[in-house]
Amino acid sequence: MPALPYAARATGLVGSVIDSSTSLLHKQTHDIVRFAMGSPAAEAVPARILSTIAADELSRPAAYDYAATEGDPPLHAALLDMLRGTSDETTADRLTVTAGGMQGLDLFCKIFVDPGDLVVVESPTYTNGSATALSYGAELLEVPVDGDGMIVDDLPRLLDGRTPKAIYTIPTFQNPSGATLSLERRHRLLELARSWGSMVIDDDPYGLLRFEGDPLPTLRELGAGDPLVFAVRTFSKIIAPGLRVGWVDADPELQRLLINAKQAMDTCTNLPAQRLLTGFLAGGHLEAHLVTQRAEYKRRKEAMHAALTEHFDDIAHWTDPEGGFFLWVTLENGVDTEKLFEVALAEGVAFIPGPAFSPTGRFTDAFRLCFASTPPDRIHEGITRLRRATAKLSPA
Amino acid sequence: MPALPYAARATGLVGSVIDSSTSLLHKQTHDIVRFAMGSPAAEAVPARILSTIAADELSRPAAYDYAATEGDPPLHAALLDMLRGTSDETTADRLTVTAGGMQGLDLFCKIFVDPGDLVVVESPTYTNGSATALSYGAELLEVPVDGDGMIVDDLPRLLDGRTPKAIYTIPTFQNPSGATLSLERRHRLLELARSWGSMVIDDDPYGLLRFEGDPLPTLRELGAGDPLVFAVRTFSKIIAPGLRVGWVDADPELQRLLINAKQAMDTCTNLPAQRLLTGFLAGGHLEAHLVTQRAEYKRRKEAMHAALTEHFDDIAHWTDPEGGFFLWVTLENGVDTEKLFEVALAEGVAFIPGPAFSPTGRFTDAFRLCFASTPPDRIHEGITRLRRATAKLSPA
Repeated sequence: MPALPYAARATGLVGSVIDSSTSLLHKQTHDIVRFAMGSPAAEAVPARILSTIAADELSRPAAYDYAATEGDPPLHAALLDMLRGTSDETTADRLTVTAGGMQGLDLFCKIFVDPGDLVVVESPTYTNGSATALSYGAELLEVPVDGDGMIVDDLPRLLDGRTPKAIYTIPTFQNPSGATLSLERRHRLLELARSWGSMVIDDDPYGLLRFEGDPLPTLRELGAGDPLVFAVRTFSKIIAPGLRVGWVDADPELQRLLINAKQAMDTCTNLPAQRLLTGFLAGGHLEAHLVTQRAEYKRRKEAMHAALTEHFDDIAHWTDPEGGFFLWVTLENGVDTEKLFEVALAEGVAFIPGPAFSPTGRFTDAFRLCFASTPPDRIHEGITRLRRATAKLSPA
Repeated sequence: MPALPYAARATGLVGSVIDSSTSLLHKQTHDIVRFAMGSPAAEAVPARILSTIAADELSRPAAYDYAATEGDPPLHAALLDMLRGTSDETTADRLTVTAGGMQGLDLFCKIFVDPGDLVVVESPTYTNGSATALSYGAELLEVPVDGDGMIVDDLPRLLDGRTPKAIYTIPTFQNPSGATLSLERRHRLLELARSWGSMVIDDDPYGLLRFEGDPLPTLRELGAGDPLVFAVRTFSKIIAPGLRVGWVDADPELQRLLINAKQAMDTCTNLPAQRLLTGFLAGGHLEAHLVTQRAEYKRRKEAMHAALTEHFDDIAHWTDPEGGFFLWVTLENGVDTEKLFEVALAEGVAFIPGPAFSPTGRFTDAFRLCFASTPPDRIHEGITRLRRATAKLSPA
């Protein structure tokens, strides 16, 4: 048998370490405290309500047919209702339903990114998002993030005269840092993008999960219909990721291209999940669900902060997100977090090491913790184990 | 507001005519006989069984989490059982679950197709498949199809010394022609592909829906593990398209790349649908379901043949598929089938015109009819209307 004659393109940035942690999630590994994946807690998934909706909706053959590529019309209607009065209020001609937020990013790249195009990403950034841009041949430029999100004023210097095709940002409760782009930087980012004619990918999966502080307008709202702003949204974090339903909010002139591109990707988004979500939204369940989730995630973040203060105060610092799922820990003791990962796993705790969040492998001293999917007592146990693992690599 | 500074890439081949027929499917248009879309009949979708499975499976929060990117392990197991003893018998390390067959094609292109690569397609071919290759910058070469499928022996001459990166074929009950690649041509195709080191994309959505004639081994089976053969399969036609679940069967060395590529596309395939399918397969429902479908689709093809013979014998010829969903009608009276589409729609019947199945707009004299989704009495009504429409364009 001949070997493959082509060097198959490695499209992902996800290295062996994350592979381990990903597959962990799907194995019955005993007693691992899992801070790795960005999934809602099992108890946060409204399975009871969804299965009640399923009993009705999924008994109909029409629920299993191809959906309209732009999204099932009843879901469009329910989405418009859901967004009315929010920072993401929109119109049907701007909406395209996608297979989660990831497909929004893939659609953007399929339509806009040519080989060699420069795409600005945050540093650290969401790995799969930057991997998508790479899979279309983009060149990535990493711009550092601080407590106020991407350091937008560094952009002109880092670009060094080049013009980016697109600027990819998760402005609110950023993955992985938990940082939120300040209002001033939001305005400045749009101003710079307009001056260059660059598109802005406004990826905001966590915005509805704010549990502290004052809400900020989305880039979508600040853009006020500017066709340069391409907004990517998802139900993954607010309801359930396994449904694989999200949406793009973009200039109406793009909708036809989005539909054509999506037809060449997966034809349409799975219809049973769209029907379940329509039932959930139209049934008025979302607001109560979000209120509960926000309170619980706040409790969990505080538990993680307390545990970190107890166990890591002497050797690390960490971020203080006002919402979302993640915080970012930077070690000050020289321990390599990819090495720490293996030791921590043996101690019974999983996280994702920093280099997974940088296309150039930065952040060997940092790691991401998901506080959202673990109850407070288990968070304490996990952070205790993590400190034990750190001590093994750093006997001092 | 600035206009978009970039020429967004038009990735689809799906022109306005198909757009109309696609959106038709999703509107409550009165009394249209729909031969356009390739959906199973509503009465062919096992909604009752699936909703019974949903009542159990979808009451569990774990059914809504991220799935393993390669596919939910229970679905892997059920698939291996389903395929045991068939021409597609395989092993878990060759399987990647996808969002329908389309995503199998998209994955192939994302991993293998570079701008300028030559990809051989059948002529006519499945539009969205060729659109996917185009969206990665492929150049397409169309090879004619006759009653025995792709005319493989024409390939060397048409290639004119060039080497294709891949050969894309739907060997069995081809979309749109209904033709099946003969055993001799299957062997010859593999032989040529090996001589060039070209990959073969073996896209076989309809193989299990044979209602006449003797089964042929799949290219996958004939390839006997040759890493050049990349097999794309789906549940869309045999169970339901809205679930968006299919699978790729490829060389085990590709599985890691497929996982990475899929993580940059949609993270994973929606888990509720995977759980429903696992329940359906593990519950032993598939075989009885297929037996019923095959008998019904045979009845419908025969009804369409009878109606065509009654109304079109003097001005057209058509194919005689031994399975699947489609037959292909070629008019001999000079009527342009894109023009016919509009007139036919006004008469209350929809089909897809031939040029939609060719990247260069061939087949202005032909169209595709789906016989699978319409009961026999409606098939007769639809063909009667179609003849009326044809008469309006061709008064002779």
